[in-house]
Amino acid sequence: MRILGIDPGLATLGYGVIDTAGSRVTLIKAGAVITTPDMITPDRLISIRQQIQQILNFYRPDQIAFEELFFAKNITTGMNVSAARGVTVCTCAEYTKELYEYTPMQIKQAIVGYGKADKHQIQQMVKMTLGMQDIIRPDDAADAVACAITHANSGLLREQFRMK
Amino acid sequence: MRILGIDPGLATLGYGVIDTAGSRVTLIKAGAVITTPDMITPDRLISIRQQIQQILNFYRPDQIAFEELFFAKNITTGMNVSAARGVTVCTCAEYTKELYEYTPMQIKQAIVGYGKADKHQIQQMVKMTLGMQDIIRPDDAADAVACAITHANSGLLREQFRMK
Repeated sequence: MRILGIDPGLATLGYGVIDTAGSRVTLIKAGAVITTPDMITPDRLISIRQQIQQILNFYRPDQIAFEELFFAKNITTGMNVSAARGVTVCTCAEYTKELYEYTPMQIKQAIVGYGKADKHQIQQMVKMTLGMQDIIRPDDAADAVACAITHANSGLLREQFRMK
Repeated sequence: MRILGIDPGLATLGYGVIDTAGSRVTLIKAGAVITTPDMITPDRLISIRQQIQQILNFYRPDQIAFEELFFAKNITTGMNVSAARGVTVCTCAEYTKELYEYTPMQIKQAIVGYGKADKHQIQQMVKMTLGMQDIIRPDDAADAVACAITHANSGLLREQFRMK
């Protein structure tokens, strides 16, 4: 099964594509969808939609796992990131109904076994799981791969993470 | 010139279409795009996109004026409304680059001449401006029409309200 993991964002959206066969996980691609602040927001949203469509059409994932957004600080930034997330979810939902969502804590718990693990621990475990020489960069791409691996390992619990 | 006013939302998105010729303003249509809580969020976002596309293709507006979102209360509700707004802005931006945005206070100032006017005052002034017998319902549709009228009257200041 092929899984696309997505860490939503406006400036940087991380994504990771993995293939699973039994307990074996293979990394197909990790990358980032970038839009720059010199673009107006409407054009950034269109660009995100188009880049996501290209990823979907090229990698043809069976299921898609999103990292849930959490905000504490800047409400305006939060609104724009939520807008980008909305465009991303809509574009993915047009492609498949197999959308799932995991909180950062659920991903940390699944990857490191500890819900308050830091980024460094996540990156090391993702590297080990995939048998890679180096950690995945940028951070957002590593987070997206971690989200995809979390989904791959969610097993019988999977349906409870289906996006509402 | 034909203007589409939009008051963004997830459950209820208000819209209003007006034609302007000189100082004359004619209401073409006021309505609401509705999605219900029994639908999952990804399907609600797709539905909003499709309904907005139908409105754009049917009414063919020259310019589109959005009411800006403001949140103080529930952050989760705010994120979902922002997601719906993102899908709406993206869909409109694919149709035209002529997108503008006004704060609720700017709309109240433009319609009633007082930035803290209440909904009742807005509705009465919109009714009078359009020479209608009754106020526009639902509220969100009236707000969208008020936003479109605000844009129609923005004159030389218009460019400063172009969506960033």
